[in-house]
Amino acid sequence: MNTRFFQDVLGSIAERGRSLKPSTSPQPAGDEHAASEALAPTRLERLCRALLSQLGEASGVALAQQVLDQYRRLPIGGRLDFFRLLARDFNPDRTQLRAAWAAYDADPTPESLQALLQAVEPPRQELFRRLNLAPGGTAALVAMREDLLKHGSGVPELKSVDNDFDHLLGSWFNRGFLVLRHIDWSTPADILERIIRYEAVHEIRGWEDLRRRLQPIDRRCFGFFHPSLVDEPLIFVEVALTREIPSTIAILLAEKRDVVPPAEQKAAVFYSISNTQVGLRGVSFGNFLIKQVAEELKREIPSLETFVTLSPVPGFAAWLGRERKVPNSEALTDADHDALALLDDPGWAMRPAVAERLRDILMPLAAHYFLRSKNRDGWPVDPVARFHLGNGARLERLNWLGDVSANGMRRSHGLMVNYLYALDDVERQHEAYTNEGLIAASASVRSLLRSGRSV
Amino acid sequence: MNTRFFQDVLGSIAERGRSLKPSTSPQPAGDEHAASEALAPTRLERLCRALLSQLGEASGVALAQQVLDQYRRLPIGGRLDFFRLLARDFNPDRTQLRAAWAAYDADPTPESLQALLQAVEPPRQELFRRLNLAPGGTAALVAMREDLLKHGSGVPELKSVDNDFDHLLGSWFNRGFLVLRHIDWSTPADILERIIRYEAVHEIRGWEDLRRRLQPIDRRCFGFFHPSLVDEPLIFVEVALTREIPSTIAILLAEKRDVVPPAEQKAAVFYSISNTQVGLRGVSFGNFLIKQVAEELKREIPSLETFVTLSPVPGFAAWLGRERKVPNSEALTDADHDALALLDDPGWAMRPAVAERLRDILMPLAAHYFLRSKNRDGWPVDPVARFHLGNGARLERLNWLGDVSANGMRRSHGLMVNYLYALDDVERQHEAYTNEGLIAASASVRSLLRSGRSV
Amino acid sequence: MNTRFFQDVLGSIAERGRSLKPSTSPQPAGDEHAASEALAPTRLERLCRALLSQLGEASGVALAQQVLDQYRRLPIGGRLDFFRLLARDFNPDRTQLRAAWAAYDADPTPESLQALLQAVEPPRQELFRRLNLAPGGTAALVAMREDLLKHGSGVPELKSVDNDFDHLLGSWFNRGFLVLRHIDWSTPADILERIIRYEAVHEIRGWEDLRRRLQPIDRRCFGFFHPSLVDEPLIFVEVALTREIPSTIAILLAEKRDVVPPAEQKAAVFYSISNTQVGLRGVSFGNFLIKQVAEELKREIPSLETFVTLSPVPGFAAWLGRERKVPNSEALTDADHDALALLDDPGWAMRPAVAERLRDILMPLAAHYFLRSKNRDGWPVDPVARFHLGNGARLERLNWLGDVSANGMRRSHGLMVNYLYALDDVERQHEAYTNEGLIAASASVRSLLRSGRSV
Amino acid sequence: MNTRFFQDVLGSIAERGRSLKPSTSPQPAGDEHAASEALAPTRLERLCRALLSQLGEASGVALAQQVLDQYRRLPIGGRLDFFRLLARDFNPDRTQLRAAWAAYDADPTPESLQALLQAVEPPRQELFRRLNLAPGGTAALVAMREDLLKHGSGVPELKSVDNDFDHLLGSWFNRGFLVLRHIDWSTPADILERIIRYEAVHEIRGWEDLRRRLQPIDRRCFGFFHPSLVDEPLIFVEVALTREIPSTIAILLAEKRDVVPPAEQKAAVFYSISNTQVGLRGVSFGNFLIKQVAEELKREIPSLETFVTLSPVPGFAAWLGRERKVPNSEALTDADHDALALLDDPGWAMRPAVAERLRDILMPLAAHYFLRSKNRDGWPVDPVARFHLGNGARLERLNWLGDVSANGMRRSHGLMVNYLYALDDVERQHEAYTNEGLIAASASVRSLLRSGRSV
Repeated sequence: MNTRFFQDVLGSIAERGRSLKPSTSPQPAGDEHAASEALAPTRLERLCRALLSQLGEASGVALAQQVLDQYRRLPIGGRLDFFRLLARDFNPDRTQLRAAWAAYDADPTPESLQALLQAVEPPRQELFRRLNLAPGGTAALVAMREDLLKHGSGVPELKSVDNDFDHLLGSWFNRGFLVLRHIDWSTPADILERIIRYEAVHEIRGWEDLRRRLQPIDRRCFGFFHPSLVDEPLIFVEVALTREIPSTIAILLAEKRDVVPPAEQKAAVFYSISNTQVGLRGVSFGNFLIKQVAEELKREIPSLETFVTLSPVPGFAAWLGRERKVPNSEALTDADHDALALLDDPGWAMRPAVAERLRDILMPLAAHYFLRSKNRDGWPVDPVARFHLGNGARLERLNWLGDVSANGMRRSHGLMVNYLYALDDVERQHEAYTNEGLIAASASVRSLLRSGRSV
Repeated sequence: MNTRFFQDVLGSIAERGRSLKPSTSPQPAGDEHAASEALAPTRLERLCRALLSQLGEASGVALAQQVLDQYRRLPIGGRLDFFRLLARDFNPDRTQLRAAWAAYDADPTPESLQALLQAVEPPRQELFRRLNLAPGGTAALVAMREDLLKHGSGVPELKSVDNDFDHLLGSWFNRGFLVLRHIDWSTPADILERIIRYEAVHEIRGWEDLRRRLQPIDRRCFGFFHPSLVDEPLIFVEVALTREIPSTIAILLAEKRDVVPPAEQKAAVFYSISNTQVGLRGVSFGNFLIKQVAEELKREIPSLETFVTLSPVPGFAAWLGRERKVPNSEALTDADHDALALLDDPGWAMRPAVAERLRDILMPLAAHYFLRSKNRDGWPVDPVARFHLGNGARLERLNWLGDVSANGMRRSHGLMVNYLYALDDVERQHEAYTNEGLIAASASVRSLLRSGRSV
Repeated sequence: MNTRFFQDVLGSIAERGRSLKPSTSPQPAGDEHAASEALAPTRLERLCRALLSQLGEASGVALAQQVLDQYRRLPIGGRLDFFRLLARDFNPDRTQLRAAWAAYDADPTPESLQALLQAVEPPRQELFRRLNLAPGGTAALVAMREDLLKHGSGVPELKSVDNDFDHLLGSWFNRGFLVLRHIDWSTPADILERIIRYEAVHEIRGWEDLRRRLQPIDRRCFGFFHPSLVDEPLIFVEVALTREIPSTIAILLAEKRDVVPPAEQKAAVFYSISNTQVGLRGVSFGNFLIKQVAEELKREIPSLETFVTLSPVPGFAAWLGRERKVPNSEALTDADHDALALLDDPGWAMRPAVAERLRDILMPLAAHYFLRSKNRDGWPVDPVARFHLGNGARLERLNWLGDVSANGMRRSHGLMVNYLYALDDVERQHEAYTNEGLIAASASVRSLLRSGRSV
Repeated sequence: MNTRFFQDVLGSIAERGRSLKPSTSPQPAGDEHAASEALAPTRLERLCRALLSQLGEASGVALAQQVLDQYRRLPIGGRLDFFRLLARDFNPDRTQLRAAWAAYDADPTPESLQALLQAVEPPRQELFRRLNLAPGGTAALVAMREDLLKHGSGVPELKSVDNDFDHLLGSWFNRGFLVLRHIDWSTPADILERIIRYEAVHEIRGWEDLRRRLQPIDRRCFGFFHPSLVDEPLIFVEVALTREIPSTIAILLAEKRDVVPPAEQKAAVFYSISNTQVGLRGVSFGNFLIKQVAEELKREIPSLETFVTLSPVPGFAAWLGRERKVPNSEALTDADHDALALLDDPGWAMRPAVAERLRDILMPLAAHYFLRSKNRDGWPVDPVARFHLGNGARLERLNWLGDVSANGMRRSHGLMVNYLYALDDVERQHEAYTNEGLIAASASVRSLLRSGRSV
């Protein structure tokens, strides 16, 4: 009941945040803005300096609001100028820092460490913390970083600003502050609208499509939310409850299908995970989300035995394309090279004989792709594989023609895979993967590797 | 309406937090604990190291929970050992740090700055952030710091640990994450109970006394709450709505009194502000609270003209006692010395003639105390004065025998004062005080200073 | 804050109601149901008798649930049989009633009146009250009455059952138990879905159309809800905030239009009111809704000056069609008859000259239709007019070609009207209309009446 | 989640209700009220007539509010005058009623039945329904009936008014509209305050006593609430979770006692049930409450095996006193008469030998009291027994000196009893009791009856 009190407490944050949500789209940079573009940083700089001064302590809320308002009025060029200003003029003071270092290096006491920590922290960080005083400040800072990543990520000098965002947002969006919520057909429409917009894996084509993913008793959706970023699911996962591990996405997303009654639900299939906030890039929630949803579902439906994904293989076609161009590819034989030419006919999957022939070649290559090919840093080439293996999941099954959509054919020649989250093994597999690079894979996947080549 | 959704979202945090609230009181350190006391840090250390390792990424929630559980089972001695461990072994790696410094000093690029920042941050900070993954983690960390402040504040080597707590909690309890709530007679009883317990200025003697401060239409109470520290008002302020600026606390707290009808309410009197969380010492909310409550009240009751405190003068009697022992006190004349001997009779305030005589002496001394006496750092001696003047308030009036309770007589010879929050002047006065040490005071207070001595 | 407690309290009703919502659609009456159709009333009757007996006091909740379950399983024929049973066998006991009457007629004491009241009340009413004990009972009873109205309204013997429903639901859905809610884009999707489905005046074509009616700052929607009929707006009204009284619906519903900023909003236009619950027919909420929404809007936007509808004229074309067939219509001249033949060309509105000519004829006829034509009971022919005039509104303006949709042309030859809710006049006009049949109309409407014919 | 929407919806009712809560205490009937007392009914009558007229449809909310305001300003004498007015002038119209009866008696069609029902319903009922339109109307009507019961219950002519209240409130406070809530230490303070005030069985002596009944993990409290009677638990029950069936109240209410851990909780003991609303007398919730709480507890704590009361025997001492005065009491022997004189020494319970001797006499008499003595209508003399036996409970055990408080000694010579709610037997026992007057009692209670006298 007390909980209500806090909902009330916290609802206030939500309202406050909503009333002042930042427009994330900058003003168009027309001529009339040319002047302000040039001038604004100066004024912005003055406001920022004031916010960091003593004055900021007395009038922080109002000043922070002015800074954010000014920022929002800037065209994108002006925003980048502002980031340049932060990068250049809100750095640690080198003189002070050198002195602090000298003192600490000579005698590393708590005091000298503290002085060093204060001297080395770029004033940008405190500026960001004070900007958070404004109503809607957190959302504004996340939007600001989105601007930086979208428009300034190629600019080396801005890297420091991004590092500071990353550090602060990582601390503020600590998993301990997030909350998992079931998203269903009685969720407020404006949040559902975001689910439609943000879905990144299998496009949601309107409200009816969304309803098919939320309303049936064998479908679930969960998201993480943060108290200060109202209305925004930070990440969400869509789940199908099935009789067995599915091998194609089409049957999960079919418009007409039989609903699986609770008593027959044996597997929880995570078939789509989407991050929503560009501005929170680098702050990782996904692994927490999958594990917590698995626990939640297990509690709700004790009959569930299997927690598994149905995942795309976004890097496979590109990797194979590269290998086909490498003269002495470790992965491909000469015979492979010839046979793979069949892929160049866009309709190959419709021709059973061709598809059968390609299957015999592509499945071992896919096993190779997952188990042997590495990127520069020694990790698997496939980004989705890195995510799930890094979480401690096991590569369970390769699904031939699991996704025959145009997108699926283009990116992965139709291949989909299942990663299995065996709750008892997750921790051990995570460690083995992280420390030794060992890739957990089922016997069936391993057996696809061509003989004569050991893993 | 959407707000509801978030209340729901956030209510979950509240529930989660409540179910796992830490016991703040350590186990008694009996004999049976002697062994565990010695051993525990070792096991705790192992868990902490695991939490900071790769494993911590996969199993952070469970590990964090184990660390906090272990900690809670320790007697206070064991807890201090744990802090010592953090102070000693979770410091920056000096070799790495030196290398990072050298690289940065040679070429201060974003990359070298980032490397330096990572090298200099004590691993304790990341440990604290990961401990926050556990349900109720935030409250547990605040309680941990309370232990440290209560039992380890005299231990110099532990200062670094406290600095890290301070840094992290300051960031997490940023004003932007707090929410102001009206606390009234329909607030959940367990929160009201805390108001009774935490009230630090004018003791609340049970539920009827509390009701008198919450329920009448000319009384208000507001507090700041944080999403992750459920049920806990971080700070709260009690307000009386009056016809004019009051000079004694007794009339505000009287059991029987006439309620001031809304139409006649002209002044909002902040007569008690209490911080509640020892573990958040150094994280300042008070100035935000007063200003936001003033705005809230102004919105609700447009007829309010004056925002003012009725404040104790906790340092006056002690200061006067010291001055009386100083041979050539700047503040006291010889005549004063003699007259002040009257104070040594505990019942002096009951004797009109004596009281009158003392008034003539004490009031100018009080003006001196506020306007001229300084502490080592050059600020006013009185801590409450420092708080309000630092917020930009003005010393408005000295109230002779404003608090004749035993406590009031002992600490301040009965003196109370009003600080005025004139919303238009707050900013300017804050700056003048902070930058130049200028003390804003009304003409009536200034006029109390004895002639011949300029301020 | 206490409010929260009650929200919690009441949320429980909502959950309880939701979990047991009745399917309103009866089972298809296939062969396999033939047997149950015949048998069920017998069993149902037994359960109903038990529910009304002493047993019903001990096990009312369970028995009520069984009755409702049984009922839901019946095909529509079985349901009507059940209503026949109620009509026939759950009537007042005539012998007892006669005795009670005799006693009362001889000596009308409180006791004899009470005995008479008890004897005359059909036991169906108590049955319905006890059915309400089941979770979701209220919704089930409303759905039951919907069945009765849809399938049994032509059956005279069932009229008593409907009367009892009407009496009970009228008491339970007393305005004092309803609550007004703003419906907007952050309302739960399943409620919004009902708005789409229930809109009865200007069809909502999907979610984007709905959004255009809810999200812009110059659009509002409000509905009445009842604690026990969860998720169901009982009635809702859509409002446009405009600069002036609009004359066509198309500009209000246009996909692209300029939003009217708050400062320029002078008129609140109620352009659609929809009842949603067939089962609550006869329970009137509409007049309360419009007045309360007007008050709500006035409070929110003090600049609003005018509260007005933009209403269809659903009976005009039919009335005119009838008049055209009457040889000596009081309303039509011979010339009118000829000219009105132009209406028979479906595209007449597209031909300016024709339209102009028809306007000169139709507008006076419309004024006649509103001000002079009466139905059998002496009230205006137009049902929408009866509703608004009965609420105390005034017929303000006739809008030529206000609705050129196929529907609008067919029902009213494109005519729309504005009814004005002048809050100061509403009461007086309501009384004049109700008691004396006086129709409040503006001078401009009256002036349309052809000279030589007094009202 | 949708639930939230309705909480919001319903919270509005709560707020509305609260803002206009009626003062239940009438104005003192001083001289200055003498005039208004005489006049007021006239004005009230005019308002009531208007509310029932056509005008009432247009302006019902405002008129209802005026009636309630007028009523509240009346002294109690004026209120009774108002009830007399209702009793006299808001009766069925006898002429119309006679005509309706004649028509119905001649031909009982749905129409003639409907006409009869309308003619026989006292206009008071519709007046009450329209008064409910006012904000806070429901609470005002309940308070009105409280006035009537407290001050007018001896006035025969007012009985009809009470009957109409009873009928209407019974329908509105149908169990299907109530909701069960857990009341605990985090319930809003103003509701807890009511629990203290309303507790009717074992007085709650302040907040600490209340806390002991709510906060420990082996204590529970539940209440029924109604959407329109905000802040008011209509009835509540206090429960202790124990290892075994308790025989004395003192151990349950002891200030210091060991808490029973969940694993050892075998019995749920209902030790206090209190109705709170005088104005709802005759509307029975108690049986629903006990059964629903039993189900709720069984779900929460599956280990619970026994649901039992620890109940007072409020009629025992009075009954025994009467029997002692009856010369040839069926219950008492001559020897009994002599021995019972020992009861006249107020301290008898403190004297072991006396107490032992009385026990041998009183326990069989108590068995007789429960199993054989009947009131005029043939039911058990004890009102608490009638309540629980009527619910289908079984008289399980008589507890000698179960309540040695002054009150307990005075009313029942210290006797307490347990009624057992065996969920499987409740229905059967209820029927046997209701239909045949059979009293369910355990063998141990029956065995207390003196041999030679069959039940």
